Amino acid sequence: MSNEKPQIGVIGMAVMGKNLALNIESRGFKVAIFNRTGSKTEKVVQDHADKNLVPSYKIEDFVESLETPRRIIMMVKAGKPTDAVIDELLPLLDKGDVLIDGGNTNFNDTMARNARLDKSGINFIGMGVSGGELGALQGPSLMPGGQKEAYDLVEPILTKIAAKAPQDGEPCVTYIGPNGAGHYVKMVHNGIEYGDEELIDESYNVMRNVAGLSVDEMSDVFTEWNKGELSSYLVEITADILSRKDDLGDDKTKPIVDMILDRGNNKGTGKWSSEDALNVQVPQSVITEAVYARYISMMKNERVAASKKLAGPENDLQLPAKEELIEKIREALFFSKIMSYAQGFEQLRFASKHYDWDLKFGELAQIWRAGCIIRAQFLQNITDAFDKKPDLDNLLMDDYFADIAAKYQQSTRDVLSLAIQAGVPVPSFSAALSYYDSYRAEVLPANLLQAQRDYFGAHTYERTDREGLFHYSWYEEQ
Amino acid sequence: MSNEKPQIGVIGMAVMGKNLALNIESRGFKVAIFNRTGSKTEKVVQDHADKNLVPSYKIEDFVESLETPRRIIMMVKAGKPTDAVIDELLPLLDKGDVLIDGGNTNFNDTMARNARLDKSGINFIGMGVSGGELGALQGPSLMPGGQKEAYDLVEPILTKIAAKAPQDGEPCVTYIGPNGAGHYVKMVHNGIEYGDEELIDESYNVMRNVAGLSVDEMSDVFTEWNKGELSSYLVEITADILSRKDDLGDDKTKPIVDMILDRGNNKGTGKWSSEDALNVQVPQSVITEAVYARYISMMKNERVAASKKLAGPENDLQLPAKEELIEKIREALFFSKIMSYAQGFEQLRFASKHYDWDLKFGELAQIWRAGCIIRAQFLQNITDAFDKKPDLDNLLMDDYFADIAAKYQQSTRDVLSLAIQAGVPVPSFSAALSYYDSYRAEVLPANLLQAQRDYFGAHTYERTDREGLFHYSWYEEQ
Repeated sequence: MSNEKPQIGVIGMAVMGKNLALNIESRGFKVAIFNRTGSKTEKVVQDHADKNLVPSYKIEDFVESLETPRRIIMMVKAGKPTDAVIDELLPLLDKGDVLIDGGNTNFNDTMARNARLDKSGINFIGMGVSGGELGALQGPSLMPGGQKEAYDLVEPILTKIAAKAPQDGEPCVTYIGPNGAGHYVKMVHNGIEYGDEELIDESYNVMRNVAGLSVDEMSDVFTEWNKGELSSYLVEITADILSRKDDLGDDKTKPIVDMILDRGNNKGTGKWSSEDALNVQVPQSVITEAVYARYISMMKNERVAASKKLAGPENDLQLPAKEELIEKIREALFFSKIMSYAQGFEQLRFASKHYDWDLKFGELAQIWRAGCIIRAQFLQNITDAFDKKPDLDNLLMDDYFADIAAKYQQSTRDVLSLAIQAGVPVPSFSAALSYYDSYRAEVLPANLLQAQRDYFGAHTYERTDREGLFHYSWYEEQ
Repeated sequence: MSNEKPQIGVIGMAVMGKNLALNIESRGFKVAIFNRTGSKTEKVVQDHADKNLVPSYKIEDFVESLETPRRIIMMVKAGKPTDAVIDELLPLLDKGDVLIDGGNTNFNDTMARNARLDKSGINFIGMGVSGGELGALQGPSLMPGGQKEAYDLVEPILTKIAAKAPQDGEPCVTYIGPNGAGHYVKMVHNGIEYGDEELIDESYNVMRNVAGLSVDEMSDVFTEWNKGELSSYLVEITADILSRKDDLGDDKTKPIVDMILDRGNNKGTGKWSSEDALNVQVPQSVITEAVYARYISMMKNERVAASKKLAGPENDLQLPAKEELIEKIREALFFSKIMSYAQGFEQLRFASKHYDWDLKFGELAQIWRAGCIIRAQFLQNITDAFDKKPDLDNLLMDDYFADIAAKYQQSTRDVLSLAIQAGVPVPSFSAALSYYDSYRAEVLPANLLQAQRDYFGAHTYERTDREGLFHYSWYEEQ
């Protein structure tokens, strides 16, 4: 081992921190490591004795061991544990040091911490890390936000450890923007991920309960879909999942999905993205319905009771031929996915303005092309759209997306009608189409809403024929 | 004027505070009044010289003038102005005094203020006041939350000034629960109000753009609907609104709605209710879509541009006969309204548990029967349902609501299918039906979701055949 000091240190030796440290080490860096419970650090060093890792068992020694300005990545639990580490570190750091929070942190906390540490001259980067354990080890998608000069100090390392896009080999990392921008973009990424998953799950539900496909048939369908414009990590693993058999029960020929309880858990980031969409006043209905779909799935006992009490439809459905219906579902899925991304990027645009971040939307799609959960071929089209027009209001106004929407809207309407008449719930599909039809509506019924609000609350209204705010004398007889 | 001290004081002489003071005075109380800008107080006294109002021009004099324990209602702008008044009052108050915030305050703020003032022995009540200016004057619906013993001190006044239910003459006020419960319930009331308005507006849009009704015809339809199970304040004013002609433009024969710009504004309470639904993890999709519908309506310029670029359907719709279609829309509206209230009351149930409030759900519907914006005949059915079963999980599990849902679900499916094929956006209708079909689904596709989450994030899954959390070896070949 050379005598030079480690160029970077990682705090937190749970699986994400350990894997990120090993990833960094594998790119030719010497990495200092530390964990509150020393035995974990010891274990990492034992398991990877041949690696260029420098363990410390006191946080003072860890800080002391690093090259200056220091670069430290925290991979600890979000919330209070993160604050506890920051409080311990702060007296030990010097002006110009760079502290990176790679945890699953709410961007509001990151903004507060960035402001707090900035007062002591410490750079604080909130970095979204996507790709799970395997991504951390082999190459995640990285979304760092904070002081630009601090980013420049860690860029050489981040570009080496990030995933590389299959299209052009570009690293999946870029400077996102100041203070909370990195964790915000990661949050929206996760919201989009919720939407993607829900749309795939609704497609599965329609194929199974409207079209009557078997689990094996659906595995083949997703395998096929993954070869075309839907090509993506989530479609790929869905095809694999549907091909897998149970590994625990009595009957090992049963599909594993049929043994899994339908209670969809969540860790909160999807919910955060919907909360902030509400806050910055942008419609983000596809993702929000995906969040709500998880909540309602959790009410398993209520649903079982309700399934015995609440009546469904008794329709004789006229189904299209199987192949035709599958193609319609594929088109509805891609259409809805485009709506979800249109909403997600519109949220980013609103947030960029609201928080004053100057986000580069095309670059965001670019760094999601590999490493992260929503990696997909179609992200390149988003980058292309923003390359053509960096101030694009909405993805739907780009020709590529407008054309697909035009082509696939009828199939979406048909699949929705079938599911609705069959009694199969399609909340995110429905939200996607409602969004499309609302967004392309020159006139919405909000004129009546404004009349109602002016009637009961004297909230005033705007007019179509002149500027200004007006109040109608509703309480005077005409 | 007698020499006894005023039994209550009102701070804030904007229209809501003034009207509430006049309402209290009209019930035989002597009322102290105060406003930061004295000229407003002066004006009130001048305009109402015959009333039993006791003005003060210094806050010290106002506090000094009151009978003890003091009862003070603040009707000031929510947020910082409310904190400013509290800071001025605090040193002047004595233990046991009751301070009531009747403003449009976020329940989180009310919880913090209740805790803060409680330390000084001051009772703090956050009170939702619904009914607008006219309600404040003639009888609002009141939702007070805070210390029960403090509520008892003001109950005799509140029951006199509240609206009286037409069914039984009962006052529209009750003790809601501790700390933020009152403002929370008011917030959910407002969320439900957003939902009601959006559902009415979508009905209007479908009647207009699918069924092809004129504005006059729609006025008649809403007038008819108001005579039946949909009977409510909002349906009533909608009928009136649609009958009104323009009062400003060149052509006074035009319906006023056609002169009103379709940008739907909001003051934030609907948004708050969706934010907290996300927080307590309850699906509240009908209201959330109503909030999003306002947001998308605000994007007028984007929509006008999109309307020229994005293709809609080109279907030859087979419409039912006009009367039949109108009846179907009525049934879809009532069905969707029930879903919205089922969600709203489920949110209240989750919140009651989350914040430890012990809400009495039946009483809430009861005090909404008059005074407030969502007042409606059908609220009595909600009270009846909770009277029968106070721990009812969901309104849909009550026979009355389950039966209507069963009867009207097919019309809802038909109206939705028509709107979807016509390209007319129906976001809240869609959310209502998706909720119904999800809630009555014994199995949802969240099994696939859990498989996906376990695949990429090792988040584990539950099984249908045994207890516990499991992880599948996705990365091993079978």
